Amino acid sequence: MNRLLSGLAPHASKRISEYAQRNPGVVDLTVGLPSFGPPRSFGAALARLSSGSRELARHEDRYAHSRGAVELRTAVAEVYAAEQGVDLDPETQVLVTNGAAGALWTAVLAVTEPGDEVLIADPAYMIYPPMVELLGRRVVRVPTSPSDGFALHVEDVRSRLTPRSRVLLVNSPGNPTGAAIGADGLADLCAFAAENGLRVVHDEVLDRFLHRGAHRSIAAVDHHGVGIAVNSLSKRFGMAGWRVGWMVGSPPVIAEAVKAHTFFLLAVSHAVQLAAATALTDPESDREVSRHADEIRARGTAFLAELGRVPGLEGARMPDGGFYAFVDVREFARLHGIPVDAGQDAGDAVAEHLLRERGVAVVPGSAFGGAGEGFVRMSFACGEDRLGRAVERLVG
Amino acid sequence: MNRLLSGLAPHASKRISEYAQRNPGVVDLTVGLPSFGPPRSFGAALARLSSGSRELARHEDRYAHSRGAVELRTAVAEVYAAEQGVDLDPETQVLVTNGAAGALWTAVLAVTEPGDEVLIADPAYMIYPPMVELLGRRVVRVPTSPSDGFALHVEDVRSRLTPRSRVLLVNSPGNPTGAAIGADGLADLCAFAAENGLRVVHDEVLDRFLHRGAHRSIAAVDHHGVGIAVNSLSKRFGMAGWRVGWMVGSPPVIAEAVKAHTFFLLAVSHAVQLAAATALTDPESDREVSRHADEIRARGTAFLAELGRVPGLEGARMPDGGFYAFVDVREFARLHGIPVDAGQDAGDAVAEHLLRERGVAVVPGSAFGGAGEGFVRMSFACGEDRLGRAVERLVG
Repeated sequence: MNRLLSGLAPHASKRISEYAQRNPGVVDLTVGLPSFGPPRSFGAALARLSSGSRELARHEDRYAHSRGAVELRTAVAEVYAAEQGVDLDPETQVLVTNGAAGALWTAVLAVTEPGDEVLIADPAYMIYPPMVELLGRRVVRVPTSPSDGFALHVEDVRSRLTPRSRVLLVNSPGNPTGAAIGADGLADLCAFAAENGLRVVHDEVLDRFLHRGAHRSIAAVDHHGVGIAVNSLSKRFGMAGWRVGWMVGSPPVIAEAVKAHTFFLLAVSHAVQLAAATALTDPESDREVSRHADEIRARGTAFLAELGRVPGLEGARMPDGGFYAFVDVREFARLHGIPVDAGQDAGDAVAEHLLRERGVAVVPGSAFGGAGEGFVRMSFACGEDRLGRAVERLVG
Repeated sequence: MNRLLSGLAPHASKRISEYAQRNPGVVDLTVGLPSFGPPRSFGAALARLSSGSRELARHEDRYAHSRGAVELRTAVAEVYAAEQGVDLDPETQVLVTNGAAGALWTAVLAVTEPGDEVLIADPAYMIYPPMVELLGRRVVRVPTSPSDGFALHVEDVRSRLTPRSRVLLVNSPGNPTGAAIGADGLADLCAFAAENGLRVVHDEVLDRFLHRGAHRSIAAVDHHGVGIAVNSLSKRFGMAGWRVGWMVGSPPVIAEAVKAHTFFLLAVSHAVQLAAATALTDPESDREVSRHADEIRARGTAFLAELGRVPGLEGARMPDGGFYAFVDVREFARLHGIPVDAGQDAGDAVAEHLLRERGVAVVPGSAFGGAGEGFVRMSFACGEDRLGRAVERLVG
């Protein structure tokens, strides 16, 4: 067996959200998925592709090209042209993947060797480190601090460089912290990466949920050919269950990533790609996304205002982007005399207390790295009722 | 970049089939996919799941469980009960994967460490070796010989064991050779594996296309808990484009594979799983599969009879299973004075000759390993017209 894998615990949010699912009385704020579903045009296109006689295999019953269906690659290029003002060649700069997760590991596999190092902010999305380690690459964490909103500083990356450093993996808008890196910050990271032989992988799955300013993709600011953007339809279209994502990068990187794809995956579900292409190029879908983002922003703002009235959570603030309140609960723990056991931090203890005593499921910040200790993550992407019930229980 | 990946050529059948696609005059016998499409019940179920309002995300818009949707795991267990007489617990012994390819690499990742060795027959399906190597594991080939129909012998495996041997990967019915391992052979391999600390991964995607006798899955004959069966709907249902596969194994192996899944993939397309479950449990689909298998057998038998009349190909014979004629073309090359260049074998030269001079695309046997030299693989899963045209061009 794989000892590294055996030694990894299933991630904490999974354990907690499974508990919440088994206990329907629990108000579940662990899941980072929006409450809305795919655009109408997606379902309609897929229903059209799915009906009809099947005596002979059709185009979409066969493997899509490993690079992705040309229809979807073209649609992705159109999205980047419209939203980021960047001109991508769908033939050489776009790879369709099995969600953003599929893009992430394929990117890491394509641009690193075993033993190479991948720099990852702390805290960060919980699947990054095990994914990198299971590929035989090393993880180097770059701590960030709540004192400046968990901003990632180039100097903190520089001080952790070694001769094996190859990739800097950033997530903006970020999960769990909500921190966003602006155009200048991303351009600086690219220049720094180019000087130091790194590539920058930018996980931008929360792109449409930036609450202040306009999202910038690394694809739009990278003048050094070191940027790799990773994205998906999971958040944008509420389509996590459908597993459609992509990678955008320089032609040599994409060429190698496509090759890796042919050995591991062959391709992504073909008809689902075709339906996704229809939805991505439908102006009505785009309006739906904007409306959903506005709704989530309004819900988040109201939720954070309520949270800020809870004794001990006065510092809770609306994040720059995303669906998550990443909240310092140390004062809350002290005020309520919540015991912090050995091997726990205040975030673990409060998450446990909220789950058992108040029936609210949240993810302890420690699940995202040591720098998340003392915090919990609460998703506000769920419906208003659920948020309302959560607030009642948190206040009570 | 990843030097190992950079050094890998895109596999030969991909290059040749892309040439065939760009040149529609070419009769393409490279593709190992049946001409039929998914069962009616699959398309109908997916169309039903795809239509309707999407203002709120539905169950199938959310991630499926990383283990797979319970509906599909249960359907897989029912298939193994009906076809193999084996009683599987869908909760602990089945993992839904992104096609059989997804099951293969997840299995290897779960049961080996970096540097461990995976034994693979030569010739074998061309993605096995690069997939294993890209995971940082080592490939040890076990040659087989045309003199006994490319049978895999335990003694040849034994002589290649080292202290790092962990997995024996077998494919039965096999691609490209068509060789099948019977129940006794599989049971012997399991006993041998148990004695030597190996696991046996059985790729059985061609299970429904065995032309002599009844297919046996390793899941049905393994009394040592060392067997891992890998399968998919790609061949059975003509659904390669949809990417649905599974792994069946002992609970500890499946538990670790599920964990790996949570870090790399999260899940497989949820609605597609639900529709696949409907199709797998529909008796009409099963009758369609049997009818398709009979048709392919009849086409193959007729095709091989014609091939056997081509001077130099008299030895061509119907394989035990699968869609492929794996044909010795050395005599054909000699008879036709086809030059074999340096760095080529007769199979490469004949494949090149057939493509350029006769407009028939086949895969050289060398693409599957050194023991495939002198052979070419021709698929007979395509429609009768195409096979008829191929024969005309081969005879002429």
